[in-house]
Amino acid sequence: MNADEKFELITRGLQEVLNPQIIKDVLEKEERPLKVYWGTAPTGKPHCGYFVPMVKLAHFLKAGCEVTVLIADLHAYLDNMKAPLEVVQHRSRYYEFVVKAILKSLNVPIEKLKFVVGSSYQLNGDYTMDIFKLSNKISQNDAKRAGADVVKQVANPLLSGLIYPLMQSLDEEYLGVDAQFGGVDQRKIFVLAEENLNGIGYKKRAHLMNPMVPGLGQGGKMSASDPNSKIDVIEDPKIVKKKIGAAFCAPGDANNGLIAFIENVIQPIHELKTEERGSFSFYIDRPDKYGGPIKFDSVKELRDAFVNGNLSPVDLKAGVTDKINELLEPIRTAFEESKEFQAAAADGYPVEVKEKKVKKVKNKGTQYPGKVSAASEKNSSSVDGLSAKFSALIKRNSLYVATIFGGAFAFQAFFDSAITRWYEQHNKGKLWKDVKPRFLEGGDDEDEEE
Amino acid sequence: MNADEKFELITRGLQEVLNPQIIKDVLEKEERPLKVYWGTAPTGKPHCGYFVPMVKLAHFLKAGCEVTVLIADLHAYLDNMKAPLEVVQHRSRYYEFVVKAILKSLNVPIEKLKFVVGSSYQLNGDYTMDIFKLSNKISQNDAKRAGADVVKQVANPLLSGLIYPLMQSLDEEYLGVDAQFGGVDQRKIFVLAEENLNGIGYKKRAHLMNPMVPGLGQGGKMSASDPNSKIDVIEDPKIVKKKIGAAFCAPGDANNGLIAFIENVIQPIHELKTEERGSFSFYIDRPDKYGGPIKFDSVKELRDAFVNGNLSPVDLKAGVTDKINELLEPIRTAFEESKEFQAAAADGYPVEVKEKKVKKVKNKGTQYPGKVSAASEKNSSSVDGLSAKFSALIKRNSLYVATIFGGAFAFQAFFDSAITRWYEQHNKGKLWKDVKPRFLEGGDDEDEEE
Repeated sequence: MNADEKFELITRGLQEVLNPQIIKDVLEKEERPLKVYWGTAPTGKPHCGYFVPMVKLAHFLKAGCEVTVLIADLHAYLDNMKAPLEVVQHRSRYYEFVVKAILKSLNVPIEKLKFVVGSSYQLNGDYTMDIFKLSNKISQNDAKRAGADVVKQVANPLLSGLIYPLMQSLDEEYLGVDAQFGGVDQRKIFVLAEENLNGIGYKKRAHLMNPMVPGLGQGGKMSASDPNSKIDVIEDPKIVKKKIGAAFCAPGDANNGLIAFIENVIQPIHELKTEERGSFSFYIDRPDKYGGPIKFDSVKELRDAFVNGNLSPVDLKAGVTDKINELLEPIRTAFEESKEFQAAAADGYPVEVKEKKVKKVKNKGTQYPGKVSAASEKNSSSVDGLSAKFSALIKRNSLYVATIFGGAFAFQAFFDSAITRWYEQHNKGKLWKDVKPRFLEGGDDEDEEE
Repeated sequence: MNADEKFELITRGLQEVLNPQIIKDVLEKEERPLKVYWGTAPTGKPHCGYFVPMVKLAHFLKAGCEVTVLIADLHAYLDNMKAPLEVVQHRSRYYEFVVKAILKSLNVPIEKLKFVVGSSYQLNGDYTMDIFKLSNKISQNDAKRAGADVVKQVANPLLSGLIYPLMQSLDEEYLGVDAQFGGVDQRKIFVLAEENLNGIGYKKRAHLMNPMVPGLGQGGKMSASDPNSKIDVIEDPKIVKKKIGAAFCAPGDANNGLIAFIENVIQPIHELKTEERGSFSFYIDRPDKYGGPIKFDSVKELRDAFVNGNLSPVDLKAGVTDKINELLEPIRTAFEESKEFQAAAADGYPVEVKEKKVKKVKNKGTQYPGKVSAASEKNSSSVDGLSAKFSALIKRNSLYVATIFGGAFAFQAFFDSAITRWYEQHNKGKLWKDVKPRFLEGGDDEDEEE
């Protein structure tokens, strides 16, 4: 691969690159591997959305880059001090296992993949001194603006939200990289880094930004506290089917999370595995009575078929379910074959059995009283309390995407069996709109508004 | 001294005490020395205003307290990164020499006096972790509010101004004290500490607050960049006389910095030296033609005489000059006798010879053209560039007072020889008001508005 080819692969599919010349200089003049870092906070269990940044890490590795994954354990710990630091350290190991398993499954070399936990240097004196120095160069307003897209917007934001962008800037220096990669929601932080590292004697870095991939739900709402709403990267195939079946997907409207996932994950992974630029193959085992098996050779073809009504949501879901199960299969296998991987999961996400809340039965004659009652029960108990409490102040890089993707199943999940093919075909776009008011009357939705 | 007597001495002259019960418990129940800390940032050379907090440190020591002086070298360094850290370390030593010399001169035991430089622990991992933890408990608004009275109010305040109050809270824990002492301008920071240390597992401390002592000038303006405007603690007696002679002091109005200094420094120091509660003796060697020598045995007596016109500003100034020279004499001696003290001064405040600016002569017919020209020249050269650049973002504790006191001579300094006894007596309060407009027309006042 020559320098131009490497540059193309490194920047493929990105929404924006800041200071591409820095990258070109490394590849063309210095003729050495580009050093890139991507940060992720080890909070809840990684979901399927995690594949979005993984595709880029795979590109970087394939282009010969030295890739550093910063496991931001301090951030994870501070965001949710309910989990002791020790538990966070197990989560860090779990994240490392997951990232490695995914990248291996994508058929790229991982010799130049490195993991660094934040606490290994972010509490050192020189780093602290640099935080102080930066804090004496950067105004409160600039720090606030930098975090605006990633810090939870609340009435009375915490001071930490102003410090994290400084740390993310310094990490570039302390990890010794040429470029930082993240979602485009990190843009303002990246600009802050570019504008201020020079001021304390460090060099400016390039920045690589992924587009934000829409989630599977409607309106961006999610329920992080409902363990049923996410597709874990080691999810059981039957659960994957159930969850994808419940995803929001209005017939004829291609702007949904399923097609976005196909475009941003399934297609590029197909390309990586086949080593053939632009390749795509999407097979749906459609029952004969609905038209029989169908195959698409490009995302455009698939999208057109969906818009024209030649591909129904149910069939699209069936195809995506198969593809996701195909993607997860090697991760599941890696998990089953490694005692350490399993131990990291068990220690990082200990099962917490909560006492069931006694709920008053509020049956006001909803349309689906049976379902509502089941949903209430799901909400009032938690098999995974710690992970459920995930409330990261800062969504590090594309974990943000992962959360949206993973969390977006929430509302639809309660209707999985109630929704029929017929219902879907004849109530375009009205699905949730129609049912929501009645559901809210009778159900327990307190966890849904997060 | 019993517990009640100790408590009285510890809190004597203070404007406010938060959580006095914490102090009483230590003295009465635990029956051990109270541990108090006072922080000061080693920036410019300490001025006479430094005597204000020193009086309280003397009280603490006399009451058997363990007194820790935190030399906040990191703050000093960060506030003014023009001075390298090495120079700041010399300043730290200089401050230690000054504090020790003053306290020795006040006749109190200094065995329980301890100095700690901030950098000895403020860059450690556990401290940094606690900053992160606090920053995740304290909102941006609360941090901002806490620093409102001590952080320089500028259009676009720096992020550091939000971090310093957290550090000042943590210092109480890391210095292992029962109470923190400071000027009442620190009140909001003290309250922040009281409200938040518990949240990260540390105990709440008591807080001792000195009143803010007014400076010697009018309207609180000062010129930190004019080396002629401060009385150094090792100032030459003749310069002291000149500077006090230039202090603002309207006849008949006792609300001036000179009488405030008598009340807050000269009287309590007299009391400390004589070991007699409430004692005072103020002698003025007035020339016979103006009424001959005069002596006051209480501050009230002196104040009344001034209000009634029986004590003129010129005579008050003569008395204060003698008293200040008396106070400074042992400090000067300590300086002259110690090579290390001198070395700390030389290394901490290296003489920087600036090129003289070429000034355009703007003579618009001012009242005192000769004086204005002299003043311009003084402003355009600096024999003490580094100290002159002092622009602390945070005025640590009563150093704030010191700066006000030290800096307040600015405007008056130009009129020292022009002002006559007659002029003073017959132009009550109009002095500066009358002259200022013309002065501003013809002079170089850019440094005066700081």
